[in-house]
Amino acid sequence: MEERIHVPLIEIPAQVRAGEPFQVKVSIGKEIPHPNTTEHHISWIDLYFHPEGGRFPRQVGRFAFVAHGEAVSGANQAPVYADPELVVTVYLERPGTFHAMALCNIHGLWQSDEVLTFGGPAAAN
Amino acid sequence: MEERIHVPLIEIPAQVRAGEPFQVKVSIGKEIPHPNTTEHHISWIDLYFHPEGGRFPRQVGRFAFVAHGEAVSGANQAPVYADPELVVTVYLERPGTFHAMALCNIHGLWQSDEVLTFGGPAAAN
Amino acid sequence: MEERIHVPLIEIPAQVRAGEPFQVKVSIGKEIPHPNTTEHHISWIDLYFHPEGGRFPRQVGRFAFVAHGEAVSGANQAPVYADPELVVTVYLERPGTFHAMALCNIHGLWQSDEVLTFGGPAAAN
Amino acid sequence: MEERIHVPLIEIPAQVRAGEPFQVKVSIGKEIPHPNTTEHHISWIDLYFHPEGGRFPRQVGRFAFVAHGEAVSGANQAPVYADPELVVTVYLERPGTFHAMALCNIHGLWQSDEVLTFGGPAAAN
Repeated sequence: MEERIHVPLIEIPAQVRAGEPFQVKVSIGKEIPHPNTTEHHISWIDLYFHPEGGRFPRQVGRFAFVAHGEAVSGANQAPVYADPELVVTVYLERPGTFHAMALCNIHGLWQSDEVLTFGGPAAAN
Repeated sequence: MEERIHVPLIEIPAQVRAGEPFQVKVSIGKEIPHPNTTEHHISWIDLYFHPEGGRFPRQVGRFAFVAHGEAVSGANQAPVYADPELVVTVYLERPGTFHAMALCNIHGLWQSDEVLTFGGPAAAN
Repeated sequence: MEERIHVPLIEIPAQVRAGEPFQVKVSIGKEIPHPNTTEHHISWIDLYFHPEGGRFPRQVGRFAFVAHGEAVSGANQAPVYADPELVVTVYLERPGTFHAMALCNIHGLWQSDEVLTFGGPAAAN
Repeated sequence: MEERIHVPLIEIPAQVRAGEPFQVKVSIGKEIPHPNTTEHHISWIDLYFHPEGGRFPRQVGRFAFVAHGEAVSGANQAPVYADPELVVTVYLERPGTFHAMALCNIHGLWQSDEVLTFGGPAAAN
């Protein structure tokens, strides 16, 4: 159960071509939403890309979600919430693997990976 | 010129309803893309929401873009880049104003605002 | 009152010399400590430096304080807390002004400034 | 060599007592300083604490170092630099292990751990 609501889901195209911008969506708890309360929430999602054959991963971004309902009137009273998901635009010169890491403020660190290959119909020309 | 490539663009629906999730897109340099090199890039975009009539703004998120081409082989050689734009999912209990702030690593801080009202056809029922 | 517990205090040497490392301490609520609970805390402190005569500020760092007592057993139960203060090591090629900005999760943004001049006895040689 | 300039050094007291504030210093490249240039630098240091017997680590803070010499006039021309080190103030209700993680913008992620026990002369009373 803990796993199903915490593991990041990385959504990318099946294939991309070198230099072509594409979208990476990362979300937490797709099937069963993770709580988003002052007391229990996803604090951030970090996204890495490890190029095939490379020695080191690169960090694409660090995305912190800050609005969890805290208000002067008390916990879970604020008028704005942000879900633990985001879409960023990336382009690559090499294929490789995306890694997403997320922090739940009470259940710690969770990670997942998604491999991206280069290719597709148009790239065959 | 500096202004046209730096000021954040906040894209939101014309109207939303209380509690309904919607997407906020923030990007930099829509018409003229901002450079994205090791030496000159957008470091981060912060998003705030100031509820109508409220005394204090809330911070929705802090989004840092880290991949600007740095590599062992030198500047601007890495195989991954992320554009300074992102889409997040937000829901509100009150209307108000979004503020986006962005940092260019050499041209400093840039800000913009977008007012969001509540309503729309379905809300009229 | 709100002001006394929120405005960042920047502590720097009276004077420094070009290229010489020195410490910058930034803290919140020196006289009256700011609360540090799951419901009410300082989320982060950002530090900027604006060189004298320069057009743009530089960002020195972004420092997020994440441990506010959240635990599986409930709010304010976790065994680790971090106070909203930090010391960083900086060196300058020009005098200028430090700006600290802090976010209270319920009372919004607070800012302060501290001017730093170059000089001192040894620099007179 | 890469290891000697990248692994975070965590400096803590030999022992602390429950609830007593103490300082944690984290630095990179103590013996051999890590480069701090626009092209090659430490991007951030994250600090975690894993309480003894606990299932999950807690994140103490996320500390990004942003000033690496970028300037309008070119790389490595800016008048402000921050070294990859910081001191934060922490208090604990239980002993445990600190973990520091750091990102070099070209050599990836590096980690180290430091165990902290409770006790000391005064605690013997």
